[in-house]
Amino acid sequence: MACVGICGSDVHYVVQGRIGDFIVKDPMIMGHEASGIVAKVGKNVKHLKEGDRVAIEPGVPCRICRFCKEGKYNLCPDIVFCATPPVHGNLSRYYVHAADFCYKLPDHVSLEEGALLEPLSVGVHACRRGGVGLGSTVLITGAGPIGMVTLITAKAMGAAKVLITDIVDHRLGVAKELGADYTYLSTVGEDEQEAVRTVHSLLAEPPDISIDCSGAEANIRLAILATKSGGVAVIVGMGAPEVKIPLVNALAREVDIRGIFRYANEYPIALSMVASGAAKVKQLITHNFSLEDTIEAFEVAKTGVGNPIKVMIHPLKERA
Amino acid sequence: MACVGICGSDVHYVVQGRIGDFIVKDPMIMGHEASGIVAKVGKNVKHLKEGDRVAIEPGVPCRICRFCKEGKYNLCPDIVFCATPPVHGNLSRYYVHAADFCYKLPDHVSLEEGALLEPLSVGVHACRRGGVGLGSTVLITGAGPIGMVTLITAKAMGAAKVLITDIVDHRLGVAKELGADYTYLSTVGEDEQEAVRTVHSLLAEPPDISIDCSGAEANIRLAILATKSGGVAVIVGMGAPEVKIPLVNALAREVDIRGIFRYANEYPIALSMVASGAAKVKQLITHNFSLEDTIEAFEVAKTGVGNPIKVMIHPLKERA
Amino acid sequence: MACVGICGSDVHYVVQGRIGDFIVKDPMIMGHEASGIVAKVGKNVKHLKEGDRVAIEPGVPCRICRFCKEGKYNLCPDIVFCATPPVHGNLSRYYVHAADFCYKLPDHVSLEEGALLEPLSVGVHACRRGGVGLGSTVLITGAGPIGMVTLITAKAMGAAKVLITDIVDHRLGVAKELGADYTYLSTVGEDEQEAVRTVHSLLAEPPDISIDCSGAEANIRLAILATKSGGVAVIVGMGAPEVKIPLVNALAREVDIRGIFRYANEYPIALSMVASGAAKVKQLITHNFSLEDTIEAFEVAKTGVGNPIKVMIHPLKERA
Amino acid sequence: MACVGICGSDVHYVVQGRIGDFIVKDPMIMGHEASGIVAKVGKNVKHLKEGDRVAIEPGVPCRICRFCKEGKYNLCPDIVFCATPPVHGNLSRYYVHAADFCYKLPDHVSLEEGALLEPLSVGVHACRRGGVGLGSTVLITGAGPIGMVTLITAKAMGAAKVLITDIVDHRLGVAKELGADYTYLSTVGEDEQEAVRTVHSLLAEPPDISIDCSGAEANIRLAILATKSGGVAVIVGMGAPEVKIPLVNALAREVDIRGIFRYANEYPIALSMVASGAAKVKQLITHNFSLEDTIEAFEVAKTGVGNPIKVMIHPLKERA
Ligand SMILES: NC(=O)c1ccc[n+]([C@@H]2O[C@H](COP(=O)([O-])OP(=O)(O)OC[C@H]3O[C@@H](n4cnc5c(N)ncnc54)[C@H](O)[C@@H]3O)[C@@H](O)[C@H]2O)c1
Ligand SMILES: NC(=O)c1ccc[n+]([C@@H]2O[C@H](COP(=O)([O-])OP(=O)(O)OC[C@H]3O[C@@H](n4cnc5c(N)ncnc54)[C@H](O)[C@@H]3O)[C@@H](O)[C@H]2O)c1
Ligand SMILES: NC(=O)c1ccc[n+]([C@@H]2O[C@H](COP(=O)([O-])OP(=O)(O)OC[C@H]3O[C@@H](n4cnc5c(N)ncnc54)[C@H](O)[C@@H]3O)[C@@H](O)[C@H]2O)c1
Ligand SMILES: NC(=O)c1ccc[n+]([C@@H]2O[C@H](COP(=O)([O-])OP(=O)(O)OC[C@H]3O[C@@H](n4cnc5c(N)ncnc54)[C@H](O)[C@@H]3O)[C@@H](O)[C@H]2O)c1
Ligand SMILES: [Zn+2]
Ligand SMILES: [Zn+2]
Ligand SMILES: [Zn+2]
Ligand SMILES: [Zn+2]
Repeated sequence: MACVGICGSDVHYVVQGRIGDFIVKDPMIMGHEASGIVAKVGKNVKHLKEGDRVAIEPGVPCRICRFCKEGKYNLCPDIVFCATPPVHGNLSRYYVHAADFCYKLPDHVSLEEGALLEPLSVGVHACRRGGVGLGSTVLITGAGPIGMVTLITAKAMGAAKVLITDIVDHRLGVAKELGADYTYLSTVGEDEQEAVRTVHSLLAEPPDISIDCSGAEANIRLAILATKSGGVAVIVGMGAPEVKIPLVNALAREVDIRGIFRYANEYPIALSMVASGAAKVKQLITHNFSLEDTIEAFEVAKTGVGNPIKVMIHPLKERA
Repeated sequence: MACVGICGSDVHYVVQGRIGDFIVKDPMIMGHEASGIVAKVGKNVKHLKEGDRVAIEPGVPCRICRFCKEGKYNLCPDIVFCATPPVHGNLSRYYVHAADFCYKLPDHVSLEEGALLEPLSVGVHACRRGGVGLGSTVLITGAGPIGMVTLITAKAMGAAKVLITDIVDHRLGVAKELGADYTYLSTVGEDEQEAVRTVHSLLAEPPDISIDCSGAEANIRLAILATKSGGVAVIVGMGAPEVKIPLVNALAREVDIRGIFRYANEYPIALSMVASGAAKVKQLITHNFSLEDTIEAFEVAKTGVGNPIKVMIHPLKERA
Repeated sequence: MACVGICGSDVHYVVQGRIGDFIVKDPMIMGHEASGIVAKVGKNVKHLKEGDRVAIEPGVPCRICRFCKEGKYNLCPDIVFCATPPVHGNLSRYYVHAADFCYKLPDHVSLEEGALLEPLSVGVHACRRGGVGLGSTVLITGAGPIGMVTLITAKAMGAAKVLITDIVDHRLGVAKELGADYTYLSTVGEDEQEAVRTVHSLLAEPPDISIDCSGAEANIRLAILATKSGGVAVIVGMGAPEVKIPLVNALAREVDIRGIFRYANEYPIALSMVASGAAKVKQLITHNFSLEDTIEAFEVAKTGVGNPIKVMIHPLKERA
Repeated sequence: MACVGICGSDVHYVVQGRIGDFIVKDPMIMGHEASGIVAKVGKNVKHLKEGDRVAIEPGVPCRICRFCKEGKYNLCPDIVFCATPPVHGNLSRYYVHAADFCYKLPDHVSLEEGALLEPLSVGVHACRRGGVGLGSTVLITGAGPIGMVTLITAKAMGAAKVLITDIVDHRLGVAKELGADYTYLSTVGEDEQEAVRTVHSLLAEPPDISIDCSGAEANIRLAILATKSGGVAVIVGMGAPEVKIPLVNALAREVDIRGIFRYANEYPIALSMVASGAAKVKQLITHNFSLEDTIEAFEVAKTGVGNPIKVMIHPLKERA
């Protein structure tokens, strides 16, 4: 492995030992946002050879169930996904992976960018599920790494206006640099109707699509209430298992509520975005560590000291 | 007007004086499930003539807003909809309506069936939004008139297995006659996980699509929890404005939540279903009244005495 | 193998030795419309056991290419498809097949019906690609086995009116029995505009969807010319490689032209149709033979003597 | 009127007196690519006032037929479309138009750009019908004004690689400036298979979508033959009414053939593209004339002398 990003879920497993029904029972290697250099290929593999630089799509599905056959392999109940217990992750020097889930990087795409295809694919999946397109007006709530890649994707798809919110001012500044048309510093506990009005007035109209990337109940509600009739509220953020939503509002205005789970067939799109320059994801990496300093890397990701956005570990590099 | 069915919303306005933000301030004529005989036509009308028997689609949109231009005229903010305050309904002897929202009935389709196109269109819209199709497995919660037309539609679309539930046994019997493959008498307060298991075991698999036609929170939750990953929970029932839902379950399994509001472009489909014999809706009419007995008709609809499903008023008929 | 139907392509390979670029170079076993009884299962197979009666989906794709991952496995360039050179078919006593492409038949579905899932899946794919739905008006040109299963499917999907044409009167009679609303005996060389007018007048409107199941150029043109603006002309029939079409007519009216190639994810739907009674395919079988009489079976299929629709070979049965 | 662009169809009517079944019988005012300044508004108009600068969507549909109700108003048989006989165009000083088909321009969008929304909407419709999206690989044949706006749109939608062809070298140079990733100077009569190979090698893969904007039979065939299995060949170019196509190739690979006719609901998108800077259409205007010099303007458009791309007439400006 060359680069492995730390994701919120990695931190969650380290700190809490579980996410919902996924419980870490035995020692588990972390990491699923990875790129690497091919050390060896299987005998039937034709598109890769030793030395190739590749991005690694971390979930390998069963290939035989109905979900797999229908192209929704992210929903495969037998998917083997890095660092989702009891499956080990790829935060290690060597690692074995199905060749067809390894994507050869063009020369001008770096291994860091290769590792970032993982979160970027989440953004692509979110925007595709939401139907973001040319001329769309989009609200994104939450400007963490996932909110940022969603923003990048929405702009790359031709969204006319994107408004992104967060409760942390620093992140909004980064979002501005990444192309946000409007930002809005929201506050915990603010009035709901007031928030709706703010969104409408900043965008000069209700958003066609709202995408929550925070998991906060207030934002999930805002995503529904603020969206244009006939629009879509995409929920990426995974927060409380139970959420109170304004359902009659959603249904009387036919605002669809669509959750997303990882991605399927989005890695090639994410790669093409980075390769063409449409997605400038590199700016998301704020901190870098060697494999020996993994504990410190997790500490930064956990505490947020130094305003990290994406913390990257480099198993191939010596400690500086 | 020849036939005007009584809908739950009519009763609601009579009893409560409001539905959500729609408040009855002045005396208002009821009725929006109607058919009639053309008494006079405008000079530009070509597809109708005096004496034609027609079904009346009760909402006439503005025709100029974006929703109207995009074919989602049910979401038009300026729609004029019968018996939605402050607009009068058509429970009267004579009534004026836009000709292009009047559908000529073939000779073998009765005026009663013409009036029933209104609820049937709701069922068609629900099934289309849910993506019901050939071979689908469908759960319908609530076997009132709306649940029944949804059942009829799902079967007409080729659904392989439809399970319908209610808390009233009598309605399940009618549903059986209308083509339900399975019925399930649920009880208020029953265990949620138990209900999911019952649904899965009756259908021998999770439903592809669940459609709530009751508005009960328990059913909205069941519609989400029981549905197959990648499936759709359609919410037709309008109950409490705020509902607690198992959101992480929905999003980790990509079960979409789609509300529906009335219908758009579904009247012609509903008419073709009745004309071809695919929708045997006539069986839904359990009670008939003359216009003079409207108060009694509403009494039956309100109290449910005599197990009414659809109560029909006949403005053209003399009191028996 | 228990039942193997003879398809036009089987006859074509036997007579011509090729279909387009697929050339029979070595002796090849025929047959791809098959059902059988499980003789042995692999050690990882859980959904099947010895003695199970199964329908066999004849194409096993590579499972790793982009088409496979996206759910369009019928387009997989590395698919291994029975009786498509150089792959042997399954018209034999024993045959090995990927377990996940074997579908267990419920007790009340016969092995004959199991074999017929193959052509039925073509009909399902055609209707799904065409967007046939509740209330659709459909024109089908060609009433061979493929036209028949397409008719059965369209009706099962809720098509309001289906008109089917052929140049052979006998086939139209069978189509009537299978549920065609209208039939039309066309003649080779008839006037094109006249044919359009006939279609429109029989259906009382232009069809929403036209589906050619003959491969005749005249029908492909009719499918375009007769279809409603905004509709779809589905081409199933494989005839001349080059066809002259009225392209400006198609594009000025936005009539889409969509070909279909076999099926993907349609076997389960076809099975559910037969299981629920929605598809009465058994009537399509007009002739039955034992394996020893295969030559005679092909002779009947080839010459059409005795008006065969589907000829079925029964490898497990003794010669009568 | 402030700006009126000359379109190929205007020239066609002037020179040939007809396009297909549309025949100019009486003197007819030309022009349908227009913007203007509001001189007067009807009493119900709220979104516009005197002096507003507006782009004019030139087709006003009937608003009552099925096509209009379903959002496909471009297919309305009763649409009144500028400069399509017998309807006059808007190449004049004053002109009356339905207010809801007049789009107010933001201050920073020029009247020239407003007029260009018309062809741009064609490009948007073409790309939407083709399903162009993030990461798409696109072939565009023909680099006239329509090919150019299609190119601009495809890039704005996030297409990863766009290859555009023409037989005129100069146009390819302009296309490069507008963002084409690859260009290819094709020659009349070149070998078809050779052209397919060239396309595949320039793009390093087959295009997902091919869009013909030339109307040339060779290009329509190339659009089919070169496109990836499962992809779409969009036909915008209106050339010979009858075209010979490789149909079996299209259907065995499920390459859909979709024509487009003008646009529906695309003006707001086109406007947002120009407003956000995503579509730099102004560069398409190569020649400008006053109303008095209309004849000269048409002469340039007709002869192509001076390599015009878009010729614009300015009714409000004095002859220079
Ligand atoms: N569905 C999936 O497949 C999937 C995949 C990856 C991540 N996720 C989820 O996406 C979410 C975001 O991931 P991330 O890595 O960016 O996490 P993160 O914690 O770095 O980012 C969340 C951001 O939301 C902001 N926020 C919190 N409350 C807010 C509020 N009330 N209003 C506005 N902003 C608010 C936070 O300040 C933070 O910047 C997490 O919930 C994660 O579990 C889901
Ligand atoms: N969205 C729309 O456009 C639209 C249009 C029409 C009706 N509606 C709504 O649809 C719903 C149904 O309308 P209807 O006319 O059939 O009403 P109804 O009251 O006659 O039917 C509701 C049925 O649900 C059953 N029910 C209640 N709680 C239940 C539970 N926990 N489990 C199972 N069944 C339960 C009731 O016994 C009853 O039979 C209403 O909420 C109505 O407001 C919505
Ligand atoms: N695309 C696919 O994946 C796929 C799959 C299976 C079959 N097919 C094709 O579908 C077609 C039909 O298959 P089949 O097995 O039913 O063949 P078939 O030959 O039995 O049926 C074709 C029918 O079309 C009729 N016909 C011929 N010319 C006609 C005309 N001008 N007007 C009306 N009817 C006419 C014939 O009389 C015959 O009844 C064949 O071309 C076959 O190659 C395609
Ligand atoms: N479908 C619709 O709604 C719609 C709307 C507008 C225009 N159109 C059509 O779109 C087409 C393009 O319009 P335009 O205004 O750009 O016309 P144009 O004539 O300026 O452009 C056509 C371009 O195609 C090129 N060309 C011709 N033959 C070629 C070949 N063999 N290979 C490559 N390039 C070739 C020409 O050199 C020219 O640059 C026309 O056919 C027009 O009728 C259709
Ligand atoms: Zn799987
Ligand atoms: Zn409206
Ligand atoms: Zn494959
Ligand atoms: Zn119209």
